[in-house]
Amino acid sequence: MPTTVLGQNQYGKAECRVVKVVRDGTTHHIKDLNVSVSLSGEMDEVHYSGSNANVLPTDTTKNTVYAFAREHGIASAEEFAALLARHFVAGQEQIHRARVRVEEYAWDRIAATGHSFVRDGRETRLAQVAYDGEQLQVIAGLKDLTVLNSTGSEFWGYAKDRYTTLPETHDRILATDVSARWRYGWTGADGAPAPDWDAAYARARTHILDAFAETYSLSLQQTMYRMGSRVVEHDADIEEIRFSLPNKHHFLVDMEPFGLKNEPDAPGGPVYFAADRPYGLIEATILREGAEQLIPVDLTTL
Amino acid sequence: MPTTVLGQNQYGKAECRVVKVVRDGTTHHIKDLNVSVSLSGEMDEVHYSGSNANVLPTDTTKNTVYAFAREHGIASAEEFAALLARHFVAGQEQIHRARVRVEEYAWDRIAATGHSFVRDGRETRLAQVAYDGEQLQVIAGLKDLTVLNSTGSEFWGYAKDRYTTLPETHDRILATDVSARWRYGWTGADGAPAPDWDAAYARARTHILDAFAETYSLSLQQTMYRMGSRVVEHDADIEEIRFSLPNKHHFLVDMEPFGLKNEPDAPGGPVYFAADRPYGLIEATILREGAEQLIPVDLTTL
Amino acid sequence: MPTTVLGQNQYGKAECRVVKVVRDGTTHHIKDLNVSVSLSGEMDEVHYSGSNANVLPTDTTKNTVYAFAREHGIASAEEFAALLARHFVAGQEQIHRARVRVEEYAWDRIAATGHSFVRDGRETRLAQVAYDGEQLQVIAGLKDLTVLNSTGSEFWGYAKDRYTTLPETHDRILATDVSARWRYGWTGADGAPAPDWDAAYARARTHILDAFAETYSLSLQQTMYRMGSRVVEHDADIEEIRFSLPNKHHFLVDMEPFGLKNEPDAPGGPVYFAADRPYGLIEATILREGAEQLIPVDLTTL
Amino acid sequence: MPTTVLGQNQYGKAECRVVKVVRDGTTHHIKDLNVSVSLSGEMDEVHYSGSNANVLPTDTTKNTVYAFAREHGIASAEEFAALLARHFVAGQEQIHRARVRVEEYAWDRIAATGHSFVRDGRETRLAQVAYDGEQLQVIAGLKDLTVLNSTGSEFWGYAKDRYTTLPETHDRILATDVSARWRYGWTGADGAPAPDWDAAYARARTHILDAFAETYSLSLQQTMYRMGSRVVEHDADIEEIRFSLPNKHHFLVDMEPFGLKNEPDAPGGPVYFAADRPYGLIEATILREGAEQLIPVDLTTL
Repeated sequence: MPTTVLGQNQYGKAECRVVKVVRDGTTHHIKDLNVSVSLSGEMDEVHYSGSNANVLPTDTTKNTVYAFAREHGIASAEEFAALLARHFVAGQEQIHRARVRVEEYAWDRIAATGHSFVRDGRETRLAQVAYDGEQLQVIAGLKDLTVLNSTGSEFWGYAKDRYTTLPETHDRILATDVSARWRYGWTGADGAPAPDWDAAYARARTHILDAFAETYSLSLQQTMYRMGSRVVEHDADIEEIRFSLPNKHHFLVDMEPFGLKNEPDAPGGPVYFAADRPYGLIEATILREGAEQLIPVDLTTL
Repeated sequence: MPTTVLGQNQYGKAECRVVKVVRDGTTHHIKDLNVSVSLSGEMDEVHYSGSNANVLPTDTTKNTVYAFAREHGIASAEEFAALLARHFVAGQEQIHRARVRVEEYAWDRIAATGHSFVRDGRETRLAQVAYDGEQLQVIAGLKDLTVLNSTGSEFWGYAKDRYTTLPETHDRILATDVSARWRYGWTGADGAPAPDWDAAYARARTHILDAFAETYSLSLQQTMYRMGSRVVEHDADIEEIRFSLPNKHHFLVDMEPFGLKNEPDAPGGPVYFAADRPYGLIEATILREGAEQLIPVDLTTL
Repeated sequence: MPTTVLGQNQYGKAECRVVKVVRDGTTHHIKDLNVSVSLSGEMDEVHYSGSNANVLPTDTTKNTVYAFAREHGIASAEEFAALLARHFVAGQEQIHRARVRVEEYAWDRIAATGHSFVRDGRETRLAQVAYDGEQLQVIAGLKDLTVLNSTGSEFWGYAKDRYTTLPETHDRILATDVSARWRYGWTGADGAPAPDWDAAYARARTHILDAFAETYSLSLQQTMYRMGSRVVEHDADIEEIRFSLPNKHHFLVDMEPFGLKNEPDAPGGPVYFAADRPYGLIEATILREGAEQLIPVDLTTL
Repeated sequence: MPTTVLGQNQYGKAECRVVKVVRDGTTHHIKDLNVSVSLSGEMDEVHYSGSNANVLPTDTTKNTVYAFAREHGIASAEEFAALLARHFVAGQEQIHRARVRVEEYAWDRIAATGHSFVRDGRETRLAQVAYDGEQLQVIAGLKDLTVLNSTGSEFWGYAKDRYTTLPETHDRILATDVSARWRYGWTGADGAPAPDWDAAYARARTHILDAFAETYSLSLQQTMYRMGSRVVEHDADIEEIRFSLPNKHHFLVDMEPFGLKNEPDAPGGPVYFAADRPYGLIEATILREGAEQLIPVDLTTL
């Protein structure tokens, strides 16, 4: 019988839904997070023999998330994740690496009171902090930010083969659900102060939106590159950014059978069919020159 | 062998995703709808023998949705649905009733250009128009509007039996995903002008939010009743409104095992676990006195 | 200010996920249910003033679901739902009507042991029991049973208008996700023995599948009617059945641009594009002659 | 202004839903796939300037999927993916790497005819083939295979800290949704015949199920390791396998407040609450000794 060995492994509690309220008189503030913890280290035995001696239960990692929210508050997704990651590696000798992922949901105020909120469904904010006992690696991002340009997009001059039937276009809708991750250079190792995580997030989000809007687009790749380079150029703390952008196709409906024109500039305006599947999928990393590419290639893998 | 007969039946094309752009110089406007059509009438034969002589294909109802968006534009979800419903009943003798449902997705502008948008993920706007050849019935609504009060909610003084273990509380989070449908009295039959659908929608939405925020709540039922009565009281066109409100439980985490206090008013603020299932589900219709209850009881049936 | 009044209302705990294991030596049996309870009665005060005096907490209804599974076991989804429905009406004077809905997930055995299972993902079994203090109403059903005929389906001879472009076809794929609900005549009121719920379910499911397969189809309506009439004809306990059937379109891909034929009977076999949206939606009730139509028209409402 | 550069990038059409029918007299066979193509190569210009000269449109990759299904049939997910991957690299000089992913949905026969099917909803089969112009890399797998042992699982003897509250247990339900990917050593480079992909898939699936059932489990990690080692030991073609296994918690309901016992071995059998979130998440790679670890660590990344 051939021998098998254990490779990379990690374990933890996923999707701890934690809501923290801070009361500032009658004005309340809320943080609404979904926290997932993954731990690695000396874990051979639990795989080979089932001995749990080195296993801090996932139930304990869950308890820790809630307890830390109570003891330390949640200054930002990134800071909270870093606090937890450091704790697990420092607290258990056999744990050598911790990775904490956070999804954050935004809430807007309902004006009537200081304690009433409506959930802002635009995008989900993301943060991931990994700690190996020496350095932190902080990746932030967002997903499900849906954007659309109703003009200012062309697609022509492409390669062709015998299966190419697509007509060229000089005016189309360009729409996508932005999924982005960017990595900060800060590692917490050299005493340098951490970035202002919330300000950095807001800035990256704004540059992504503005670059999407302002780029006259010959391809979604071109638009994506502008989005990424603009984020990196405007934030000295960001080393690289990766996007996964579905091309949400909006097809001009063929109205000829009904004797109607349906060009983009037709009087009254055009009508599009918003398609579901299949969709184009455009992905790339944009790096500061000289930076290392560390964000995984597939934001969703296989 | 016993005899079987055909009962209520309807057919049509569901989920036609139509995006209409209106170009006002370099400023664009978009309408983003999901339209579903259901037709009824003299349809015995297609069920009994498979003869399609009376069946206008669902593909044709789809084409009509797109062609009407091109020919007539989309003034509002309600008006567009009414136009379609009248058309199907007027255009095919054998069709006696048409019901058109619309989901509408809102978009906000990205400031940089006149043609760039980011999808507003808060709620989905709903409209349903039914036409029987004489009268229109217009039901509007919304779903997935998530709201939360971080205080101002109690729950106590309830009935108990041997399975009751819930402790009473005088300070809890109250959160729900609002799903609401309201019916307008206008039927288009007597020459009365139609309501301003967009203004009426905005008004209903605001009253729902404000009533949720401003009601000091002893039960979700009480809050719901205030939300509904406020909508009906402030819009003479609305006859009834129905809500389906999940009670999205946020449980105070028990911190005693960690030697921590976690009361709602504890310094630093409390921590909650946001639960998924099970959840309370609170549903009711609130009617103008004397109005008929016509909105179906189950917004999601079985 | 106009007066508003309370209309139909109901409340309870939704989606209690309960798994019951029965150990028969080393052979185990499992029941895996999702139970939702809705209660109605003298509930004006909780809506008007917030007094919970008549409100049995939804937390208690949840506890009851679990306790009853322990005390009484789960003989079948229908029997368990009936037990619960009777209990709530009998146990609380102010509750006049209870409706209990159950989703049931099936598991198959993994041969290796008596306690190992793999979930059968085909369909979800459904049961709904309502009790008003006198009679039970039992509706059973299923959803997400996906079926496909790769031939034996035509569509032609339909009505046409100026928006009709669909070509007629004499050989197409017919595919749908079956959603069905059927109502039993048994009410528990006259001492008659209850049907064998599991056997009745299995029988209805088989007749639905066989009728789908064996019907040479000129329209999905015709196939649906055969499915329904066959169920009613073969089970004297079933009074009516309702279907909601999406027409899951499979379009022949146009291969002419590539110089390829793609007819249904082409050598090697045809290739289809499986579309998502829009889709046809075909719905009807089929009744035993003389039966009352009580299943709601919209299995998913608005 | 700092300089930015382009890192790893890829593009293509995702989720082409293709259904292929083969007619063997009146007996039909169907293949139901969801195919996603990603291409990489000399793509700097489309990102920097928007020139599409090197870009074969994603619409063409979609057309190719359908045309190849017609021209070559679909012998298996793996073979079809390999055919496509080779084609894109061979056909366009500027494309240096192609990766084709396939989801496959299984269908069972309805006995009544040779052309009627019901979808088997158990698991989704997965295949990914990458080609760099020289070698193929074939990864197969499955997802959403839900399994449960109602006994034969313990969890005790674990590490503890101040946040540990979990009681030890010697009899619990162990349940998970299996997500697995395994890599074949075959690369197509040396003239060696390809494995029998369907047989290898069936074998791996069986060993996963049997190992899950037959392992008396002291931890989910132990069970996972047995599942993986058994697959590798029984198939000389498989070099490594990775799992991502949520621990789907089933909690014994506390019945003490109702005066009921609810131990696993209580007469009548225990009752469990099936929880949604949070859940444990256990992941690892199991390798043939000496094999390289090439399957990405995160099956779903960030």
